[in-house]
Amino acid sequence: MTALFKTIALIGKYKNRDITAPLLNLARHLAGQGLNVVLDALTVIQIEKVEFPILTLDEIGQQADLAIVLGGDGTMLNIARTLVDYNVPLVGVNQGRLGFLTDLTVDTMQATLGTMLDGQFIVENRMLLAAEVSRDTGMVFKELAFNDVVLHRGISSGMIEFEVRVDGEYVYALRSDGLIVATPTGSTAYALSSGGPILHPKLDLIALVPVCPHTLSNRPIVVGGDAVVEIKLHCATETKIYADSHSWFDLGEHDQIVIRRHPETIKILHSVHHSYYRMLREKLGWSGILQHNNTD
Amino acid sequence: MTALFKTIALIGKYKNRDITAPLLNLARHLAGQGLNVVLDALTVIQIEKVEFPILTLDEIGQQADLAIVLGGDGTMLNIARTLVDYNVPLVGVNQGRLGFLTDLTVDTMQATLGTMLDGQFIVENRMLLAAEVSRDTGMVFKELAFNDVVLHRGISSGMIEFEVRVDGEYVYALRSDGLIVATPTGSTAYALSSGGPILHPKLDLIALVPVCPHTLSNRPIVVGGDAVVEIKLHCATETKIYADSHSWFDLGEHDQIVIRRHPETIKILHSVHHSYYRMLREKLGWSGILQHNNTD
Amino acid sequence: MTALFKTIALIGKYKNRDITAPLLNLARHLAGQGLNVVLDALTVIQIEKVEFPILTLDEIGQQADLAIVLGGDGTMLNIARTLVDYNVPLVGVNQGRLGFLTDLTVDTMQATLGTMLDGQFIVENRMLLAAEVSRDTGMVFKELAFNDVVLHRGISSGMIEFEVRVDGEYVYALRSDGLIVATPTGSTAYALSSGGPILHPKLDLIALVPVCPHTLSNRPIVVGGDAVVEIKLHCATETKIYADSHSWFDLGEHDQIVIRRHPETIKILHSVHHSYYRMLREKLGWSGILQHNNTD
Amino acid sequence: MTALFKTIALIGKYKNRDITAPLLNLARHLAGQGLNVVLDALTVIQIEKVEFPILTLDEIGQQADLAIVLGGDGTMLNIARTLVDYNVPLVGVNQGRLGFLTDLTVDTMQATLGTMLDGQFIVENRMLLAAEVSRDTGMVFKELAFNDVVLHRGISSGMIEFEVRVDGEYVYALRSDGLIVATPTGSTAYALSSGGPILHPKLDLIALVPVCPHTLSNRPIVVGGDAVVEIKLHCATETKIYADSHSWFDLGEHDQIVIRRHPETIKILHSVHHSYYRMLREKLGWSGILQHNNTD
Repeated sequence: MTALFKTIALIGKYKNRDITAPLLNLARHLAGQGLNVVLDALTVIQIEKVEFPILTLDEIGQQADLAIVLGGDGTMLNIARTLVDYNVPLVGVNQGRLGFLTDLTVDTMQATLGTMLDGQFIVENRMLLAAEVSRDTGMVFKELAFNDVVLHRGISSGMIEFEVRVDGEYVYALRSDGLIVATPTGSTAYALSSGGPILHPKLDLIALVPVCPHTLSNRPIVVGGDAVVEIKLHCATETKIYADSHSWFDLGEHDQIVIRRHPETIKILHSVHHSYYRMLREKLGWSGILQHNNTD
Repeated sequence: MTALFKTIALIGKYKNRDITAPLLNLARHLAGQGLNVVLDALTVIQIEKVEFPILTLDEIGQQADLAIVLGGDGTMLNIARTLVDYNVPLVGVNQGRLGFLTDLTVDTMQATLGTMLDGQFIVENRMLLAAEVSRDTGMVFKELAFNDVVLHRGISSGMIEFEVRVDGEYVYALRSDGLIVATPTGSTAYALSSGGPILHPKLDLIALVPVCPHTLSNRPIVVGGDAVVEIKLHCATETKIYADSHSWFDLGEHDQIVIRRHPETIKILHSVHHSYYRMLREKLGWSGILQHNNTD
Repeated sequence: MTALFKTIALIGKYKNRDITAPLLNLARHLAGQGLNVVLDALTVIQIEKVEFPILTLDEIGQQADLAIVLGGDGTMLNIARTLVDYNVPLVGVNQGRLGFLTDLTVDTMQATLGTMLDGQFIVENRMLLAAEVSRDTGMVFKELAFNDVVLHRGISSGMIEFEVRVDGEYVYALRSDGLIVATPTGSTAYALSSGGPILHPKLDLIALVPVCPHTLSNRPIVVGGDAVVEIKLHCATETKIYADSHSWFDLGEHDQIVIRRHPETIKILHSVHHSYYRMLREKLGWSGILQHNNTD
Repeated sequence: MTALFKTIALIGKYKNRDITAPLLNLARHLAGQGLNVVLDALTVIQIEKVEFPILTLDEIGQQADLAIVLGGDGTMLNIARTLVDYNVPLVGVNQGRLGFLTDLTVDTMQATLGTMLDGQFIVENRMLLAAEVSRDTGMVFKELAFNDVVLHRGISSGMIEFEVRVDGEYVYALRSDGLIVATPTGSTAYALSSGGPILHPKLDLIALVPVCPHTLSNRPIVVGGDAVVEIKLHCATETKIYADSHSWFDLGEHDQIVIRRHPETIKILHSVHHSYYRMLREKLGWSGILQHNNTD
């Protein structure tokens, strides 16, 4: 029998010592089963002596058949943005309570991963967004986002003003704290706090969610995943653009922002017992069983 | 040259005398251009003498190449539910202010329709929902909806309780005033008043929007148009199911509700100058140009 | 030393057998301490033999110095509406999880009540609303509400339309599912599910909270407790008025609705360890301690 | 007959040339009626030659019986913060469309002011907030706010974390973009965009409105105007405190923020024809008359 995944990369949350022991345990366990185990270079900085090959993320992208990420959703976002172009699937393991993207726990990961490496898993293809900022001098910022691209006033005290076009069509002029352009993955992150809808992760959609809009009827809009979103700032004082709360850029007065789907998707592998709705219920405190009516 | 549309049906808002004059004018204008014009039987009840063939809606479905609806969005909803299975495209003309579905005005309809009948138009395929209620004795209710299928407490004073499944997966148990299951067309109707997102009408999506949910984190969820939504009531006192605010049915204790996409779509024709976002701006009072900042 | 409370009435949730044993235990415990214990007539219907005087609620109002209510928030609402005019303070004991109004538990009630009967308690004065409906023939409906007076479409499928005046000033014409006129006590009930704010219970305020308003900018308004709210229906098909989800009345076309503060307040006694904000945190799932940031 | 107001100060929007002509016209008109007219020093910077005494705002506070402000709501906020401690009433005149605080128009101001100076006006007393930030070294920031005191993440990409106490009682730990502590005046400004309720301006209340809270059930809370709000930051990276979007301060890790009602109120004079609800309807696009139901 041929193994589906021969070379497995292990990646841990950056600068997090708690992850060292479970990560090395998992590495030895997988190596003991005849798999090639490699470790991420940034992850092992704080480990004194490692018996496994150490690779950069790009080398992992070139060589690994699967990347197992131990950390939280934030670590998954970071790794996904780098590995998306290498077509390496990801599995997420959470140290603490479950995340939206990290649905295995450290305690049960060996058994669950064993079943998954045997071929029993669910594959999810998730979209990313690519944001570009251009000005007279050419492109000045380009970044991928797995959750969202966010336009937001920085330290300025007032609202910002900008125009939005979708596929060349004028949508609105908005005065607000900002605008969240979110993937389905990001629909349960910042966009949800701003009143956006939950988009099932298998869908190919982009949500435009205003942050504290001045006009109260400016509600979230959902457009197709193939939509091209253009934003033109009117008043750019201190305005910033963020990709996944990870990197940001200071926008200038006449900058043109274009946000569109990244051509590659990232594969997330789940256990066959994974349920997206159960995770929503747990993370959002929804009722799994009906509560007793407290008004009697 | 062969006309795209040879037989044109004209349908007016039911029991509305204001529509008679413009409808007959349009009929004569179109007939004058050599088109076969037929009139809807319900529309002409109040007209004394009509020189055009009078057909039922089902006959219109069988014979017409195009149906022009004079009325409001509500009339379009009603006509669409009947004509969807006959594959007759619709054009909507509004008497008063523009509607989401009726984007021609009585004043300019002759010119605009002229251009459209010459072949210059945009076609939109829009989905409908089919709702079925079953109990021990078999199916007891079956209805189409263009906007939404709504589960709602009737005159009962308390919240209703029910469980929702999507594609067989358990989503949540909800205590609320009700649940709106909306198409993209319906996303700008009742669902919007209940906090749902605006879904671009070309998308194949279903929104689940709770009405006044007891648990504040029960937010709208968007699933694929191919999703099968099942609802099971726990406490059915006075609960009703509505299709497009048009027909309703009294639910019983153990009724099973299944909502899914209707296999046929309805074609809506628009002028080439039609813009969905401009209509949103006008209907929702969004800013087309940036307002002056009133805080200086 | 003179006891503050000499005659104590015990009232249980109606038709609830689970409450019988703890209620009788408490009755005997209090009687054993020399207090006059009386029982509510409706509460003891299902008890075979009772050694305490049995009084109607009105007799309790005339004779008791304190009423202890075993049930949920709904039972408290019902009792408060009757006892408010007798100036008898209430203590609420909850069988299940804590309620907003019932903040003692059955398990610890004897100890907590002991301390409270010794004079260590917090008194809260809470307002009620009085609703009156008039038509040509005079007043046709009059009811008190502790949580809210609600105007709501019944089984009709469309929105209702009405005009609202406050202190004689025209506020707005509203098209919506309904309108909630809430006390601070009711601000954490139905009004909260409809987007209303939480009003601290010691405040003398009335909140007007639209239910699913057609115009998205129709947001909740908070007015003074002395405000007189008048509602005039435009289109009354099937519209109902509810007081505390308890009683309702079918409104007619030209009915005039007036809602104002009831002249008497109801006294709720709490343990000195009671904290309103802690109860909010527990009931609404707010964070008492900071969560770990899951995005790293 | 003795005039109610003898010395009238005229104050215009800063650096706004459009205001010069109407302001001088008004000055001459009032002087022609025998009133002492004085002009604000900052307002007249751009005017070449002025025939009226020129005073600083503080001198206006000491000498004027009434201050007429020509500008927008922002100018009114600025002037109110300075004049509140001098007990000088304000009248607001708006150049463009009406503001919440500036309800006279340039076109009709002479006639309306004439009536008001004759004693026909409505007085509104409005509260302000005082914010103080303290650290080991003592108080480091102190500012008044007429609309709101806002705690907000600056350029940092993540949520901020802080604890809130009211009157010494622990309310919640919040993870969010920020927190708005608003007066009734500010309830129709930034707080409204963040989901806060509209508080009638005559009420003595403080609203706590979270900005994009991580926990969806963290809803706006309204407390009494005498409440003392304390905020303690957990994670202060880049967090700022703003008073009326006017001045801000960079918060440090262990800063203590205390927000409470300022002891003085500001008097706003309105025409007897002023209606708060009519202004809400106009500014928020509410329906003054019932719209026709568009679903028929």
